[in-house]
Amino acid sequence: MNQTTNAAVITPEQLLEHWQGHRKLTRKTIEAFPDDKLFTYSIGGMRPFSELVMEFIDMTGPGITGIQSGEWKKFGEDSRPKPATKAALLARWDEVTELLNSTWPNIKPERFQERELAFGQWDGTVYWSVLYFIDNEIHHRGQGFVYLRSLGIEPPPFWNRQ
Amino acid sequence: MNQTTNAAVITPEQLLEHWQGHRKLTRKTIEAFPDDKLFTYSIGGMRPFSELVMEFIDMTGPGITGIQSGEWKKFGEDSRPKPATKAALLARWDEVTELLNSTWPNIKPERFQERELAFGQWDGTVYWSVLYFIDNEIHHRGQGFVYLRSLGIEPPPFWNRQ
Repeated sequence: MNQTTNAAVITPEQLLEHWQGHRKLTRKTIEAFPDDKLFTYSIGGMRPFSELVMEFIDMTGPGITGIQSGEWKKFGEDSRPKPATKAALLARWDEVTELLNSTWPNIKPERFQERELAFGQWDGTVYWSVLYFIDNEIHHRGQGFVYLRSLGIEPPPFWNRQ
Repeated sequence: MNQTTNAAVITPEQLLEHWQGHRKLTRKTIEAFPDDKLFTYSIGGMRPFSELVMEFIDMTGPGITGIQSGEWKKFGEDSRPKPATKAALLARWDEVTELLNSTWPNIKPERFQERELAFGQWDGTVYWSVLYFIDNEIHHRGQGFVYLRSLGIEPPPFWNRQ
């Protein structure tokens, strides 16, 4: 757990770029949905893609604030009404993009190996929480790809993070 | 790109544990499929889950060998016949689990920041390739979760990597 070397597996800057690259792909996935299907379409009783996206937003925005400051709100504790249109959802998305970019440089490098109770309830090392936030987005976005395919819509290419 | 600090974001050991944790979840996802559906079931013209799993196997096995040695085969260049049963697919999976565990300690820590033409065709930093292999598995496994849900089968919990 405590091993460190001068050779970084990944630097904080690279991890931010990796995360924002995935977030660009998610944004393109949101855009690919027809406006109504984004909020209504489902397979196998799963949540519509808009609700999965709200989970990413609720995890990333308050999550990065908690990681930087050590102060956590309860998960999903955003008093604002949920976006009801694609444009409003994308605007909320872009707010989080800015927040992530502006908060990240204020995270001390040693923070990634500290233990933290994320959202006051999930115990883990900070790097683990960051990877969980990213992986959860990849996981559910992959499900959004199936929704798109089953609607006859080509999803954006997975490898393109620009 | 070249910034290193004594505080590691994530150590090589942690990255292996993270990867193998995801691979445990994928193994449970394979097990959750009925034998026939694993090789035949599809939504929206997508590949059956068995073919997605073969992609993970072809990426992880030869991928980790290439990362460690710098010697690459062409992607998918495995002359053995593809597994045709769930048991055979799981056996192939377990081979890769062992290979990953035995190869990983032989990867020099500085290797993660070296540039490499993965599989002779994908140019990138080694950490990027490793994350790509992991993310590709998360992405397509999420699609397998939709297949399971639409079959009325509860997938294994996403957060459980034991």
